[in-house]
Amino acid sequence: MNTPGSGTPRLAADTGERGLIARIRHRLPPAPPELVVGPGDDAAVVRPDRGALQILTTDALVEGVHFDLRFSSPADVGHKALAVNLSDIAAMGGVPRFALLSLMLPASCTLDAVDQLLDGLFALAGRSRVTVAGGNIARSPGPLVVDMAVTGAAKVRKVLTRSGGRAGDRLYVSGRIGAAKAGLEWLRSRTSAEALQLTADAGLDECVAHHRRPEPRSRLGALLGRARAASACMDLSDGLADAVRQMAEASGTGAKIESAGLPIHPAAAAWFREHDADPVDRALEGGDDYELLFAVPARFKGRFRAVTRLVHGLSLTHIGELTSERSIRLVRDGVDVELPGGFVHF
Amino acid sequence: MNTPGSGTPRLAADTGERGLIARIRHRLPPAPPELVVGPGDDAAVVRPDRGALQILTTDALVEGVHFDLRFSSPADVGHKALAVNLSDIAAMGGVPRFALLSLMLPASCTLDAVDQLLDGLFALAGRSRVTVAGGNIARSPGPLVVDMAVTGAAKVRKVLTRSGGRAGDRLYVSGRIGAAKAGLEWLRSRTSAEALQLTADAGLDECVAHHRRPEPRSRLGALLGRARAASACMDLSDGLADAVRQMAEASGTGAKIESAGLPIHPAAAAWFREHDADPVDRALEGGDDYELLFAVPARFKGRFRAVTRLVHGLSLTHIGELTSERSIRLVRDGVDVELPGGFVHF
Repeated sequence: MNTPGSGTPRLAADTGERGLIARIRHRLPPAPPELVVGPGDDAAVVRPDRGALQILTTDALVEGVHFDLRFSSPADVGHKALAVNLSDIAAMGGVPRFALLSLMLPASCTLDAVDQLLDGLFALAGRSRVTVAGGNIARSPGPLVVDMAVTGAAKVRKVLTRSGGRAGDRLYVSGRIGAAKAGLEWLRSRTSAEALQLTADAGLDECVAHHRRPEPRSRLGALLGRARAASACMDLSDGLADAVRQMAEASGTGAKIESAGLPIHPAAAAWFREHDADPVDRALEGGDDYELLFAVPARFKGRFRAVTRLVHGLSLTHIGELTSERSIRLVRDGVDVELPGGFVHF
Repeated sequence: MNTPGSGTPRLAADTGERGLIARIRHRLPPAPPELVVGPGDDAAVVRPDRGALQILTTDALVEGVHFDLRFSSPADVGHKALAVNLSDIAAMGGVPRFALLSLMLPASCTLDAVDQLLDGLFALAGRSRVTVAGGNIARSPGPLVVDMAVTGAAKVRKVLTRSGGRAGDRLYVSGRIGAAKAGLEWLRSRTSAEALQLTADAGLDECVAHHRRPEPRSRLGALLGRARAASACMDLSDGLADAVRQMAEASGTGAKIESAGLPIHPAAAAWFREHDADPVDRALEGGDDYELLFAVPARFKGRFRAVTRLVHGLSLTHIGELTSERSIRLVRDGVDVELPGGFVHF
């Protein structure tokens, strides 16, 4: 499609929607038998897991709102578009199954950029055993939009909602928080040429990677659901403070968090401190940390211990409790204060 | 939310993502028992139809590409965003079940416009017995985008693909073609103030309505699938010529269409003629007609007759045949010519 001397091929000039769909179909891995009709017909047809409930979620990445192509490569965007949806499936205790990809492409978007985006997306889909079953391609007169819908499966009574928590349940969070926020702040503090280079600091590099390519906690979510090791679960897409507040509200409880125990990424904490910001406040308001917050009742202790042994390498930190008193508290240096707020989209 | 004297409330200023989600949730009709977890959690959870295959589709409407707010109201856009997806489910012979709504809203979008969009969408969802199970709201720095993913159900061996046709199968098309195209051309020929008024001509009004609010052929598609009355089926979203070409290609056949029998909307035919265009050519290239093209083998005649009795009011017109000769022909005034092409998106 790239003719000599024509420069970088652009979509509008060099290929049609059909050509692009054919290009994507050629790159799809062999379909599993559950995909009865794959891309290329009016719709996809799949065989749902027998006896299971189905989880449905959708999440979009919009250029200029959720990503900046000076700071993230097309492959990063492709990865993240799927990752944020997988995070939702994990938060429900499910196993991801099928994905639909809805691309809205500006005329300035190159074929090469689309290929890279698909590289990032298919690499994560392959690792996560998610089948891209179909999708849609449209022109965008504005930003690049990567919108996805993903299905997952979970057994009846194994689904994890936000509302199942009870007073006394211990709250845990996976991984480390604040990293994605620090990574994005670092990128914004650079010129775009510098931003695409690695920093000298391995810790900050890790933060940048958390922003660009969050790792959905698919294995943890599926294990917590399958083992019924948690009473409630949700992801941290809008920050830990917001997640705690929403889980408590949905469960009809309050919550108390210990600031000393929060698993703040050390390089993020250092970055916040260097910029005269309080690491606890910043990590709590966070956003873009695709970790899981979950509640473990005392009677699930054995099951939970079994899960912790199966997620080697991923830290699960006890950060507080759900409480019968309906307020959301943060205990800081022995003083009990109101928890600061979460991320507001508009 | 609208305070006196504040003028038309805009999203950015007067409400957050949460407020908007709460607003949508309040407007949802009571959920059926198959919706186990509805909007408000990380994802929706549904109970799929036992023993059925699941159909998955996604289609987006992008402002400035698929609609123009001078020509369509927000309610029209809400209706059409769901209709185009229902058309895909119908084309597979399925019954629609659940929908996910992904909205990308420019800052200039008013709460009132969002409410109207939901009016149009929920009215069609109610009539079509589709449950809006969840969704996502994001800000758009560019156009208004309404992206939807819809699931449907069909029994094993009752799914209608494009590829099931055989030489000798009779081709049928539902309803009338060319209307949406003529309606849009009429709208574009007016100033925007005029465009929102009805025309004096009832026929052109019907064409405009076809463009603004296409009626998905949900009942026909579901009946053709359930009765196995067709060997292949697809919708006309990219025009009849394109649909015939794609069905023949997927089925490994050719096709022959009779121009005299094409069910061109009479007001559309008159409009094309008035503008020195050939009605057959324009209606064939069409686009935006959400009718169904389907193939009926001779041995399915009895089943097909039973279906025709159940879709009262909807005409089903015999337009030609699939052929063993692999070319796509149009018979016109006794002369056999190559079929003109379909709609190209980029």
